[in-house]
Amino acid sequence: MSSVRVELGSRSYDILIGSGLLAQPASFACVARARASALVVSNTTVAPLYADRLQASLQPHYARVLRCVLPDGEQYKDWQTLNLVFDALLAQHCDRRSVVYALGGGVVGDISGFAAACYMRGVDFVQVPTTLLAQVDSSVGGKTGINHPAGKNMIGAFHQPRLVVADSEVLRSLPRRELQAGLAEVIKHGAIADLEFFAWLEHHLDDLLALDAPAVAHAVHRCCSIKARIVSRDETESGARALLNFGHTFGHAIEAAMGWGRWLHGEAVAAGMVVAAELSVSLGLLDRQILSRLRELLLRAGLPVQVPALPVARYLDLMRVDKKAEGGTLRYVLLDALGSARLAAAPDALVTEALCAHGALAQADA
Amino acid sequence: MSSVRVELGSRSYDILIGSGLLAQPASFACVARARASALVVSNTTVAPLYADRLQASLQPHYARVLRCVLPDGEQYKDWQTLNLVFDALLAQHCDRRSVVYALGGGVVGDISGFAAACYMRGVDFVQVPTTLLAQVDSSVGGKTGINHPAGKNMIGAFHQPRLVVADSEVLRSLPRRELQAGLAEVIKHGAIADLEFFAWLEHHLDDLLALDAPAVAHAVHRCCSIKARIVSRDETESGARALLNFGHTFGHAIEAAMGWGRWLHGEAVAAGMVVAAELSVSLGLLDRQILSRLRELLLRAGLPVQVPALPVARYLDLMRVDKKAEGGTLRYVLLDALGSARLAAAPDALVTEALCAHGALAQADA
Repeated sequence: MSSVRVELGSRSYDILIGSGLLAQPASFACVARARASALVVSNTTVAPLYADRLQASLQPHYARVLRCVLPDGEQYKDWQTLNLVFDALLAQHCDRRSVVYALGGGVVGDISGFAAACYMRGVDFVQVPTTLLAQVDSSVGGKTGINHPAGKNMIGAFHQPRLVVADSEVLRSLPRRELQAGLAEVIKHGAIADLEFFAWLEHHLDDLLALDAPAVAHAVHRCCSIKARIVSRDETESGARALLNFGHTFGHAIEAAMGWGRWLHGEAVAAGMVVAAELSVSLGLLDRQILSRLRELLLRAGLPVQVPALPVARYLDLMRVDKKAEGGTLRYVLLDALGSARLAAAPDALVTEALCAHGALAQADA
Repeated sequence: MSSVRVELGSRSYDILIGSGLLAQPASFACVARARASALVVSNTTVAPLYADRLQASLQPHYARVLRCVLPDGEQYKDWQTLNLVFDALLAQHCDRRSVVYALGGGVVGDISGFAAACYMRGVDFVQVPTTLLAQVDSSVGGKTGINHPAGKNMIGAFHQPRLVVADSEVLRSLPRRELQAGLAEVIKHGAIADLEFFAWLEHHLDDLLALDAPAVAHAVHRCCSIKARIVSRDETESGARALLNFGHTFGHAIEAAMGWGRWLHGEAVAAGMVVAAELSVSLGLLDRQILSRLRELLLRAGLPVQVPALPVARYLDLMRVDKKAEGGTLRYVLLDALGSARLAAAPDALVTEALCAHGALAQADA
């Protein structure tokens, strides 16, 4: 078992990484509350696999361990589903000392964390991510929220977990497509912040695809360390934290255009990173050879490197409501080099070119 | 014009108190943002009276000044109404630099503040309270949220405004019933924290009912000073701030039992304070003569001093989901003396007696 500390003053917390952590009550000892309730929030896919195991590990620590099962899928990341968590908390008379456990992927984590942020104006929560994507990215950093028909994650809160428990064993039940989607975020961490890790990924991608235990543990630890360092410096994304959104401006537009849930988040981010790297090349920031290395690695991971064939204007419209649009000007996360990113504006003409170079339809084709 | 500072480190802000502030652009200069949007959120009652005036004062400070009008009433303090604010922000492509202005009473302030807390994980907001209750209480301190069918303010956030502008002039359009409801919170501030102010209220209640300008300004300033001092010490209600809930545990139960919006919040708090004072007397904390003075002052303000004639069990059930129930034990705000309060548990038998002494039906009557 290894751990990574997220330093945030009184809201600091640990990420525990290892195999079999879910089955060990000791993993959760630091959030024990003998007189309070724990509510395990999961979904219809994950609950049958792991909720009993987690509940058994929590039993020694709480007066009551309750369960709330949500429908599975990004398309349910909405108010109706969020309200199921509030209903469960209220029906069971959970008070301010209750602790919410998010057992699942990014959607379960985002909804549960937001429910914890809002219930009685804030209760504690713990992330127990069961997807690679959630283990390396979404469970760390306190971003919580739901989607609005007009945009992804438009409604939410910064609410840090008290603990993150990343059990590598649970990744064994992950469908291959979701594993691949998680690799997109793993590759992202290397691309924006860690040249050495990117090179490691080029050598060890097959080990990760085969779920080789030491390789997975190394990748999760490395990604969490990178993310923890960035979040500690910029909790609410006024600066450096925005770099973690590499590929996300284009990725969100893909997800919105296709309908939430059709493309997995990681898949959309993969194609989005290719477009963002193309934009970096055309702005003269990045060597084209780096774009090729990034594209190659994503391809090897079985990820899409083209955006869906939709009119480029549709993408531009969707990106304008993306939350990174400040004062009307979109800013993009761009690569300077492998392992180094920056935030900058770009002319619409170049953005259009970059999108069209990787799958979008130019106006004339539409 | 006078001002009260709420000291909360980097989130400190001023409460401006005076006559005619709404019509003066200078009142809002400290939150000016030349390249961003302001969204004025109001309701169908207040918008026709004051939205034009506020928008004109904001015009010099923002690129765009938008408006969102909500239905009026506590029964609309729900997700559907909250979503109208999100819809307006998204339809107008408002970004993270936008500022939300809450123009109205406590419901508008709570909904708008919660919308600001959640939109893109948090944008700034300004309170422009138009009721006495909002000016002396709900606009200060950053409590925001909405109701759930199972309980009042169950879903929300602590999100401090950047500025509060309390214009005494707008109180002239307030229906007498709402003015009286506001006086309940004014009297509460004296009862829990300021003996001298309570005595002042006994002498000047008629001036307040007549909306005598210097008297109103003094009362608003006094209440805001008391609340600012308490909030500065305990922003998230882990201790002293709970004392501001004097009368609220019973009051919320009244509001829930009658259906949100049937009793005004201040009316419910008035009757709730009488029950809480009765409980203080029966626990041997308070002299019965103080209860009489409190009851007398509330009566002179035209406020109810009896709870609705409902079975006492109904009240107890509703109070158990109230957010002050910790580890299953309800804690009540009780008076030690005029101007001094404390938080304590009380046996159900005494709570039942106190409720029945002031209007609730004992089991046998039901």
